[in-house]
Amino acid sequence: MHVQLNPLGSMDLLSQLEVDHLKQNTQQEAFRLFRNCCLAVLNVGSHTDSSAEIYEQFEDFAVNLLSRERGIKIELFNPPLSAFVDGQIIKGIHEHLFAVLRDILFYHSRLQSNKSWLDLSNSAHITHTVFDILRNARVIDASNEPNMVVCWGGHSINETEYTYTKEVGYQLGLRGMDICTGCGPGAMKGPMKGATIGHNKQRIYKGRYLGLTEPSIIAAEPPNPIVNQLVILPDIEKRLEAFVRVAHGIIVFPGGAGTAEELLYLLGIMLHQDNQQQHLPVILTGPKQSEAYFNEIVSFISNTLGETALNLFEVIIDDAPAVAKKLKQGAAEVRQYRKTVGDAYHFNWTLNIEPDFQQPFIPNHANMAALDLHPQQDKATLAANLRRAFSGIVAGNVKDEGIRAIRQHGPFEISGEARLMHMMDTLLQAFVEQGRMKLPGSKYEPCYRVIR
Amino acid sequence: MHVQLNPLGSMDLLSQLEVDHLKQNTQQEAFRLFRNCCLAVLNVGSHTDSSAEIYEQFEDFAVNLLSRERGIKIELFNPPLSAFVDGQIIKGIHEHLFAVLRDILFYHSRLQSNKSWLDLSNSAHITHTVFDILRNARVIDASNEPNMVVCWGGHSINETEYTYTKEVGYQLGLRGMDICTGCGPGAMKGPMKGATIGHNKQRIYKGRYLGLTEPSIIAAEPPNPIVNQLVILPDIEKRLEAFVRVAHGIIVFPGGAGTAEELLYLLGIMLHQDNQQQHLPVILTGPKQSEAYFNEIVSFISNTLGETALNLFEVIIDDAPAVAKKLKQGAAEVRQYRKTVGDAYHFNWTLNIEPDFQQPFIPNHANMAALDLHPQQDKATLAANLRRAFSGIVAGNVKDEGIRAIRQHGPFEISGEARLMHMMDTLLQAFVEQGRMKLPGSKYEPCYRVIR
Amino acid sequence: MHVQLNPLGSMDLLSQLEVDHLKQNTQQEAFRLFRNCCLAVLNVGSHTDSSAEIYEQFEDFAVNLLSRERGIKIELFNPPLSAFVDGQIIKGIHEHLFAVLRDILFYHSRLQSNKSWLDLSNSAHITHTVFDILRNARVIDASNEPNMVVCWGGHSINETEYTYTKEVGYQLGLRGMDICTGCGPGAMKGPMKGATIGHNKQRIYKGRYLGLTEPSIIAAEPPNPIVNQLVILPDIEKRLEAFVRVAHGIIVFPGGAGTAEELLYLLGIMLHQDNQQQHLPVILTGPKQSEAYFNEIVSFISNTLGETALNLFEVIIDDAPAVAKKLKQGAAEVRQYRKTVGDAYHFNWTLNIEPDFQQPFIPNHANMAALDLHPQQDKATLAANLRRAFSGIVAGNVKDEGIRAIRQHGPFEISGEARLMHMMDTLLQAFVEQGRMKLPGSKYEPCYRVIR
Amino acid sequence: MHVQLNPLGSMDLLSQLEVDHLKQNTQQEAFRLFRNCCLAVLNVGSHTDSSAEIYEQFEDFAVNLLSRERGIKIELFNPPLSAFVDGQIIKGIHEHLFAVLRDILFYHSRLQSNKSWLDLSNSAHITHTVFDILRNARVIDASNEPNMVVCWGGHSINETEYTYTKEVGYQLGLRGMDICTGCGPGAMKGPMKGATIGHNKQRIYKGRYLGLTEPSIIAAEPPNPIVNQLVILPDIEKRLEAFVRVAHGIIVFPGGAGTAEELLYLLGIMLHQDNQQQHLPVILTGPKQSEAYFNEIVSFISNTLGETALNLFEVIIDDAPAVAKKLKQGAAEVRQYRKTVGDAYHFNWTLNIEPDFQQPFIPNHANMAALDLHPQQDKATLAANLRRAFSGIVAGNVKDEGIRAIRQHGPFEISGEARLMHMMDTLLQAFVEQGRMKLPGSKYEPCYRVIR
Repeated sequence: MHVQLNPLGSMDLLSQLEVDHLKQNTQQEAFRLFRNCCLAVLNVGSHTDSSAEIYEQFEDFAVNLLSRERGIKIELFNPPLSAFVDGQIIKGIHEHLFAVLRDILFYHSRLQSNKSWLDLSNSAHITHTVFDILRNARVIDASNEPNMVVCWGGHSINETEYTYTKEVGYQLGLRGMDICTGCGPGAMKGPMKGATIGHNKQRIYKGRYLGLTEPSIIAAEPPNPIVNQLVILPDIEKRLEAFVRVAHGIIVFPGGAGTAEELLYLLGIMLHQDNQQQHLPVILTGPKQSEAYFNEIVSFISNTLGETALNLFEVIIDDAPAVAKKLKQGAAEVRQYRKTVGDAYHFNWTLNIEPDFQQPFIPNHANMAALDLHPQQDKATLAANLRRAFSGIVAGNVKDEGIRAIRQHGPFEISGEARLMHMMDTLLQAFVEQGRMKLPGSKYEPCYRVIR
Repeated sequence: MHVQLNPLGSMDLLSQLEVDHLKQNTQQEAFRLFRNCCLAVLNVGSHTDSSAEIYEQFEDFAVNLLSRERGIKIELFNPPLSAFVDGQIIKGIHEHLFAVLRDILFYHSRLQSNKSWLDLSNSAHITHTVFDILRNARVIDASNEPNMVVCWGGHSINETEYTYTKEVGYQLGLRGMDICTGCGPGAMKGPMKGATIGHNKQRIYKGRYLGLTEPSIIAAEPPNPIVNQLVILPDIEKRLEAFVRVAHGIIVFPGGAGTAEELLYLLGIMLHQDNQQQHLPVILTGPKQSEAYFNEIVSFISNTLGETALNLFEVIIDDAPAVAKKLKQGAAEVRQYRKTVGDAYHFNWTLNIEPDFQQPFIPNHANMAALDLHPQQDKATLAANLRRAFSGIVAGNVKDEGIRAIRQHGPFEISGEARLMHMMDTLLQAFVEQGRMKLPGSKYEPCYRVIR
Repeated sequence: MHVQLNPLGSMDLLSQLEVDHLKQNTQQEAFRLFRNCCLAVLNVGSHTDSSAEIYEQFEDFAVNLLSRERGIKIELFNPPLSAFVDGQIIKGIHEHLFAVLRDILFYHSRLQSNKSWLDLSNSAHITHTVFDILRNARVIDASNEPNMVVCWGGHSINETEYTYTKEVGYQLGLRGMDICTGCGPGAMKGPMKGATIGHNKQRIYKGRYLGLTEPSIIAAEPPNPIVNQLVILPDIEKRLEAFVRVAHGIIVFPGGAGTAEELLYLLGIMLHQDNQQQHLPVILTGPKQSEAYFNEIVSFISNTLGETALNLFEVIIDDAPAVAKKLKQGAAEVRQYRKTVGDAYHFNWTLNIEPDFQQPFIPNHANMAALDLHPQQDKATLAANLRRAFSGIVAGNVKDEGIRAIRQHGPFEISGEARLMHMMDTLLQAFVEQGRMKLPGSKYEPCYRVIR
Repeated sequence: MHVQLNPLGSMDLLSQLEVDHLKQNTQQEAFRLFRNCCLAVLNVGSHTDSSAEIYEQFEDFAVNLLSRERGIKIELFNPPLSAFVDGQIIKGIHEHLFAVLRDILFYHSRLQSNKSWLDLSNSAHITHTVFDILRNARVIDASNEPNMVVCWGGHSINETEYTYTKEVGYQLGLRGMDICTGCGPGAMKGPMKGATIGHNKQRIYKGRYLGLTEPSIIAAEPPNPIVNQLVILPDIEKRLEAFVRVAHGIIVFPGGAGTAEELLYLLGIMLHQDNQQQHLPVILTGPKQSEAYFNEIVSFISNTLGETALNLFEVIIDDAPAVAKKLKQGAAEVRQYRKTVGDAYHFNWTLNIEPDFQQPFIPNHANMAALDLHPQQDKATLAANLRRAFSGIVAGNVKDEGIRAIRQHGPFEISGEARLMHMMDTLLQAFVEQGRMKLPGSKYEPCYRVIR
């Protein structure tokens, strides 16, 4: 099978020079990434979260760029058939492919062009880059009211939990809230599906379903075509920054290492004294059966980051309408706060994010082993380090490079202060037992070893 | 609880004279009907299909009309709380209430005003009335392409069947088709929910979910708020005419007496020689487990209406994409045909409907007993009479008046030629055994007795 | 030349029955009217205001209705070429033709159908009819803010006056006000052209240019295609009622007998005690050179209707921005008032209009001679009678029937109390001398004789 | 007077970093340019074309940038009052101010940022820059059909000519064509005003009125607020390139040195053999009284560029409908051609423009004196040099720097081959005599001297 696709979104207006630059990429490393992300986007409905497995299954898939005087086209060879209806590509997937082109190749070119002045070790420049990527993707709109709820949670959750995430999404949709998730299945898909029905009942036809992902996770957690705004940030840290700057409220559903990473990132930032005036409602929620799970999380946070951290969020068990109502009210307060300080509704400029949370962490064996994990440090720094530890585990679980590193060198070794190690081990063990590390279908082999 | 609602849709522009006319209704019989239909619309998510039960449960519900210089308002007392989100009525239900006002009271007034010239025994006048009601409800749009799929099927179906109706709706939505059903749960809700997701993936934000109902069925089968175009036709015959004139394709899912009524109505019309050139794809479909059900239906039709009737539809088992694909192709042929004969896309004017199928049948004991049921008559006339028999059974099952008549006088008696009666009895017995007559929750007491 | 036109506006959704009714009209008197109005609409840019002349010039013009299953088409034979651009009819004129069909034939049918209950001698029924015609023409919209300025004034004005009307329209357009006039050239066209530019500069792309006309005046004063909402009311009295009920402010530019008629109608109504609380800003305005003209008008009103009438309007000379600013502020007060009393923004329901101002006056020699014109009567009644006198003169000047009656029987004779007759004669003589009675090109022969 | 304005267009989404960069400009040379362009845009309706005079008149006008967390605001001190209506700035002017910010300061920053790779001596890079500026201004839309008519002509034309340009604009508007001019009065304003009325009659509500200007001309020729897409290109050469790449047809009305410059630029390019297949209809047109003017132009071109150049355009005298009809047909051919070669509709990528026509020419005394003006050179090169000569005269006539240079050093001296000099002198003398060099109001002092 062989298909040519016309450009959509901001990719439909390129200059000859830009088209030439894109074409030049085809020989380069970035192009392999582009090809893999295209595959991820096309391979919706897949039942594995192993990037490696997907890449092997579609070895003969290829992608090409065609330059026309009027612009660029994407050419696909042997794409997964699930992306097509009667030979026509699904519109949502068509859009996603050009989002991949835009974020992986086009924006990459722009970063190259700006190298002379853009300093990615500078905090303000990083934040500018996050904003610029979102703006270039046309997901930021100065006319929108604050109504974006970021939903975090596991890609591998059970049926009861999944139904609950749909119910929460439905209740949010009924209240006119939009949804942002990390793409992928489970807790990242449920709220969007639910909100779709809620929006329809309220005759809201422009509901936004924003998916923020990054190149190494997209294959394991491909965006559902309901996502009508897809952005691929260059790395996990910029993706996290994008989440917290576009959010007017955050929900944490049950999840595994990735969810823990997200929560630690958030708490680490919110603990900073510059952010004490910030309004950002955070709710941990799940069905009745998830109560124990949240108790464990709360206990881990209490024991590591202290009581102050517990004041930064609320736990609500099995009450979707209450969750939605709180976030609706919370968004009104966010609006009021932003107005007072003169901040934008569409991007939280006044939120302080320390470089510790912005600099990319590369999860290899050396870096994982070197993590400084002991309680005698500043709480925010501890949160940053714990975040990195969980980030590494996610990589080892589902990311292509991580999986290959583990295959080659064995599990990551995580060491530190004994009591802290004990707590981490307990928490991770619980994730494993509850099947949160990987999609069902195979026995989970831990990619880490906690040295106690 | 006490709520006042501003007018929506065509009810937001009334003259003082019209408002006065509406107000005068409050003392009359039509107003009781209006009140009950409002209740039905508000009582979404109800788990009973007994109108009587619902009316008893909400005895203290009341509705009032307020006249303002700028127009009319609806006032609700003690409405079901499920219609509200944080004290605000759901927009879709708000719209439905004014659809009830429009079709039950306002259009009723218009019919009264037109009594001097409108002759409801005249076939052309009946068709005009059906069109006028749809136009007044703003559901007819000359600019729409032919893409309306009418889905018939039971309100009481099992989980596997329900999931299948959602899948068919999803496949239709992916192909840009809109959905029309009779409102209510089961096979009438599934296709709409599925299409919502399909439309979203294809970025179709103006999908139409058209619900056609009638006053005596609306309480038992209340419209889901996804229905974004609700029309209440004055009687079952005008509702059936509306279905077939707006359809560009028809699906019959498994169902009970009501579904049988709809199918017999359709076949009776299509058998007419004036309709031999008509293009109207009809597909009977269900999951694997429904195969036996369709065999029974096919056998009943073959034995009563003959082989010719079998050519008017197709049976597809357990293949949602195939169903959707056929209807998509069929709609293109409908378009071509309408263009050739100069007919409209939005209303099938050239379809001939004999008065036998247009005149209201009142399902009381006398009329049911008098039905002429024997095979030695014209096939179309036989279809018309069989249609009436099933219509009566629906009334006895779920309609308020029907239930009360049965309570008072015992089951309807249906008699006729022996072999035909045997076939009817077998078919009805199967419906009973498969739980298609009533929603689960109580033992079904047949409202009919076949005299063999 | 021979052209077929597809239906637009509300005429694109007719039932077969309605199409049949329209077709039946072709043999009747109403159809001649329809044909003449079509001609008027097509004959834009004409340089005569004599209906008779136009009808003679285009004797071979014919119009026909074609019935299609999908609806109605208008067929034109030998239409004026000025309505076409490269063989394509101008869209605005295309719309106007279907407005003619809608208001002359379709609404005529509706009135016939409603004869059994609609009582056109009843004040409330007349007002309902005016509203119903406007609603059926889709010019009433409950979501519009109060911003409609009705501009009255002569069709035959000089270049300086015309430029001034454009300037006022421009200033109104800059302030977001919409324009309603009686169609036709001169003071009815200038404000719309000006507003078009003002709206463009303010990026208002949905400016409304509402033209209200009636069958006997439309040929003499054809709607400019800038008019994007055209309504043809059945008679001059309903047209006047439509003007004052849709207005949120009224401007009177210099004009002749027709303008005097409009002003007397307005003052007669506003003098009624039920209307004392009404907010309706009225401004008489013109360039410096028109000052004398307005002095004469003011003096006439003062001497006939008294000082009270002078308080109902304001005269502003040569200050377009001031006029526009006052009306902008006035509209805000109208909004406040309507809100307070619960009245609609789109139609002034609370304005009282006595039957004296609603009943059609037929301007023949007998009725004109019988007018009761003396100062010893109620001021409102006197205004009503004076209004009729001027109405008759307009008919004699430009309406087909009027012109023919004058040709046959000589000028209308107007008699009454001596001083009043003197004042009328003076005013009319001034209109004649200033060239306000007819478009330039011929010597004006008065169609009236004041018996002093 | 003191006003703060919120951002519009693409300036409403800036990052903190971008806002900071803009703020830094306030100390620099570019900011003076920004201030002057703001003044030009505000000073609409001015009756002088002397930039110097305007700058002197509004010496106390000042502009400031305010940085807010949510973005940038423009602050005005003592702005010309003609830009305001009842204290509110006219929306169109508000948009123009942010267009100035975008093109003068923001885009300037972008050019600075791209210095490391963008090579403005490279032809492809220049074309990319022209495209990028237009895209950043959101005036390029891949979904538009080819319908853009570029109108060139003098800012100082007489009333008959002005009326004719309005009539041509009206005829273009009736045919659905959009208008692009160089902003300013005269032949640059007339076609837009006319098209506005034409578009309204055809119910085209999204007509585009594109103004392309450059910093040194904008004060002398300020954009009328009808212009709903304003772009300020950095220099005259990029502005000319923008004209010819967005055009689907070009009209040349009577004009002076600037119009001659534009025509020579166009012919010089079209004479290139790579452009022989190009479709670009060019029409020189004016009222009857302009016939002699066009004869002179034709004769000059024939004598300098030869007969071939005469085939590149057509002269139509006093027939606005014919002009519009030709361009409408021509646009259809342009569409066909672009489709065939795969070029975009919104930007003519395949048109070859030699560096000679892209490199900025700085019109000082030395450069003017050095111009190589003799007939023994390639026709395209000769056209390029003649273009530069006229460009210099425009600068000396109306541009601030040019006027000051002439004041200081006396007129430019233009020398070359005798016969050519004679022809130039004759043509220029005709422009002077016909009042085309400057707006009326003062005696024109030539800014040049032809050395014969």
